[in-house]
Amino acid sequence: MPDQVLDDISHRRYNPLIGSWLLVSPHRTKRPWQGQQEAPSKIKLPEHDPKCYLCPGNTRAQGDSNPEYENTFAFVNDYSAVKEEQQEYNPEVNKDDVASLLLQAQPVTGRCYVLTFSAKHDLTLADMTTQEILPVIQTWTRIYASHLSLSHPLKAEAAQALERIPPNPHGEVEPPKRQLRYMQIFENKGAAMGCSNPHPHCQVWTTSTLPEEPGKELVEMTKYHGGHGRHLLEDYVKLEMEKGERIVWQNDAFLVVCPWWAIWPFEVLIIAKRHIRAIVDFTDEERLQFTEAIQEVTRRYDNLFETSFPYSSGIHQAPLDCTKDEAETSWFHMHFYPPLLRSATVRKFLVGYELMAEPQRDITPEQAAAKLRDCGGELYRKSLG
Amino acid sequence: MPDQVLDDISHRRYNPLIGSWLLVSPHRTKRPWQGQQEAPSKIKLPEHDPKCYLCPGNTRAQGDSNPEYENTFAFVNDYSAVKEEQQEYNPEVNKDDVASLLLQAQPVTGRCYVLTFSAKHDLTLADMTTQEILPVIQTWTRIYASHLSLSHPLKAEAAQALERIPPNPHGEVEPPKRQLRYMQIFENKGAAMGCSNPHPHCQVWTTSTLPEEPGKELVEMTKYHGGHGRHLLEDYVKLEMEKGERIVWQNDAFLVVCPWWAIWPFEVLIIAKRHIRAIVDFTDEERLQFTEAIQEVTRRYDNLFETSFPYSSGIHQAPLDCTKDEAETSWFHMHFYPPLLRSATVRKFLVGYELMAEPQRDITPEQAAAKLRDCGGELYRKSLG
Ligand SMILES: O=P(O)(O)O[C@H]1O[C@H](CO)[C@@H](O)[C@H](O)[C@H]1O
Ligand SMILES: O=P(O)(O)O[C@H]1O[C@H](CO)[C@@H](O)[C@H](O)[C@H]1O
Repeated sequence: MPDQVLDDISHRRYNPLIGSWLLVSPHRTKRPWQGQQEAPSKIKLPEHDPKCYLCPGNTRAQGDSNPEYENTFAFVNDYSAVKEEQQEYNPEVNKDDVASLLLQAQPVTGRCYVLTFSAKHDLTLADMTTQEILPVIQTWTRIYASHLSLSHPLKAEAAQALERIPPNPHGEVEPPKRQLRYMQIFENKGAAMGCSNPHPHCQVWTTSTLPEEPGKELVEMTKYHGGHGRHLLEDYVKLEMEKGERIVWQNDAFLVVCPWWAIWPFEVLIIAKRHIRAIVDFTDEERLQFTEAIQEVTRRYDNLFETSFPYSSGIHQAPLDCTKDEAETSWFHMHFYPPLLRSATVRKFLVGYELMAEPQRDITPEQAAAKLRDCGGELYRKSLG
Repeated sequence: MPDQVLDDISHRRYNPLIGSWLLVSPHRTKRPWQGQQEAPSKIKLPEHDPKCYLCPGNTRAQGDSNPEYENTFAFVNDYSAVKEEQQEYNPEVNKDDVASLLLQAQPVTGRCYVLTFSAKHDLTLADMTTQEILPVIQTWTRIYASHLSLSHPLKAEAAQALERIPPNPHGEVEPPKRQLRYMQIFENKGAAMGCSNPHPHCQVWTTSTLPEEPGKELVEMTKYHGGHGRHLLEDYVKLEMEKGERIVWQNDAFLVVCPWWAIWPFEVLIIAKRHIRAIVDFTDEERLQFTEAIQEVTRRYDNLFETSFPYSSGIHQAPLDCTKDEAETSWFHMHFYPPLLRSATVRKFLVGYELMAEPQRDITPEQAAAKLRDCGGELYRKSLG
């Protein structure tokens, strides 16, 4: 079993999804830690915080007030990273000109939404029931569906989803003025991951350009499909189900693994078991099963160190505007990147070597998966009463 | 002037050194910040800390004791990420086998050094004179030179450097048992960058593999050289000197810029003005000029927010074992990635969108360069007396 050797030796692993390597140093966990400690989050938050710009009924920074919403509430970020309207920028490009080669820029337009998960300020996904998480998945589906291009290969599926899923009164957004290329749904949870407001929410950034990461994934997935006639994540799901070593949890529709190529200590990937190109492909049953998967991941995270576990998560799926091939190559999955390594206060820093040379991790993904498998069940906060 | 438009609109910039894009959102600096605050570093450290594992004369975690060194002291990290001796790993690779495609691993051996900058626990590079920084550059040069392969294209330059630079009694290391491929010199400074000990020091990780980042740079620099007959950084230096907009500081040998494609708010690149392939190419005068460049960068950083500015820095140069082409394509430069954005306590988080989609920055590199240009001169701590 060559794989057991990897528990002891330094090695690199290859990430076929983005085509790059990372360094794994399993013995390095023995290192004592005298550096920065994270402040564990305050345990008691109020159910409604009058100063929170996301709570129902409150007024936001630029004067708008929030409706008395119940679960999801979507609005355009008051400090959006991209906007729909801006000055034109059309630099002259001359291929022989050094400036055109080395000082390249492209304008980016788009729209950034903030989307709450619940009206209650003190909840997190881990605290919510699957029935409470369902409106979040439904709103993601409707927002994605309403942003697809007219000629999108998934247009029929989108229309069907919009018909089947009732609109959430405060989760609806206006269609964008111009067609956009990609929608990135992501959550930053916890102060350690740059989240400035504990009110449960995610962001949805839609841009006129295809961002780097999903772009790299599409390239690799297309190459793999071209070369093998099967999907990269289709093969990967099968392989992980055979091996079992990196599985955290699964149901009929989704597999939760610490991927072979995980960078963050407890990095997790939720992968669709069948070929789901985007969230509009979900059946009603799959939407429910996806709420379960999210619940299992976030509860296990919290249980692991008995803390409100920080992470960034994000969904990768078919672009909003794409060719038939791009849609066919896409395979729905969701990444979770949590920084904690050893306890509620000791994180893994991805710094000097990681930034300058190559990502480096200490415990193996197999060890991480075993720990996450072992801490399922009820949320630890519940049992404390 | 199309470039002025970029001060106001969201856009992407291309990083030709690694072949990828990042998102720039200049208007986003107006966003109020209610998230995590960094703890500014304690102002008064002792000159010698009996509990520090780097101070002269002290005993380290695994029992070794440090010599009474004066400036640089090099030793093998007690918790190295890679080691010289480990179990063999030779997995059978079968190209048609899914596991061989999707679960790829390579063994990595090597040696990790820790290298102090000074015997004094309470100094940083910004506090040191150029004469005090010189032994650091000299030790970097001797360590690099002593790790080059027998057939290395820079072997003659290395021999000459070893002859000209007197050995520092505690800065010497043994040659590795087996030839290694790459040497990454880097510093993590400050708790915010995962540094667990304020004693001024850097790390030197040497590995049997070429890590991702310098690997990507070599590919891009080789492509550029092949296509244009000139070096990428040669053209870039000229262009930045013509434009002037992103220059922070320069002397005869080095240009300091906030690169066009900077990700971190005050990211800086020190670039050799002539074709220096590796640190062994430096003349005596260039070593001195390099100490000046490092001093100018680190002082300006500290002056900017009147704090001990955290950063990760790292040197990219020719691999330890390489072809003539790889050596010829290499161009010495040093990256600085500092996390602070607005003050000593407010950092930029590269999290959800950045990790899942694309790096995103708020102020433009031109604005950052202007600020860094304006805070030169003596270290603010000095003038306080
Ligand atoms: O070796 P140190 O300084 O203890 O550790 C620090 O730098 C390393 C190299 O960038 C990282 O892998 C660690 O996460 C970080 O805490
Ligand atoms: O938009 P927020 O939550 O205020 O900001 C947070 O997430 C963004 C997207 O990942 C990052 O660019 C910011 O640095 C981070 O603080």
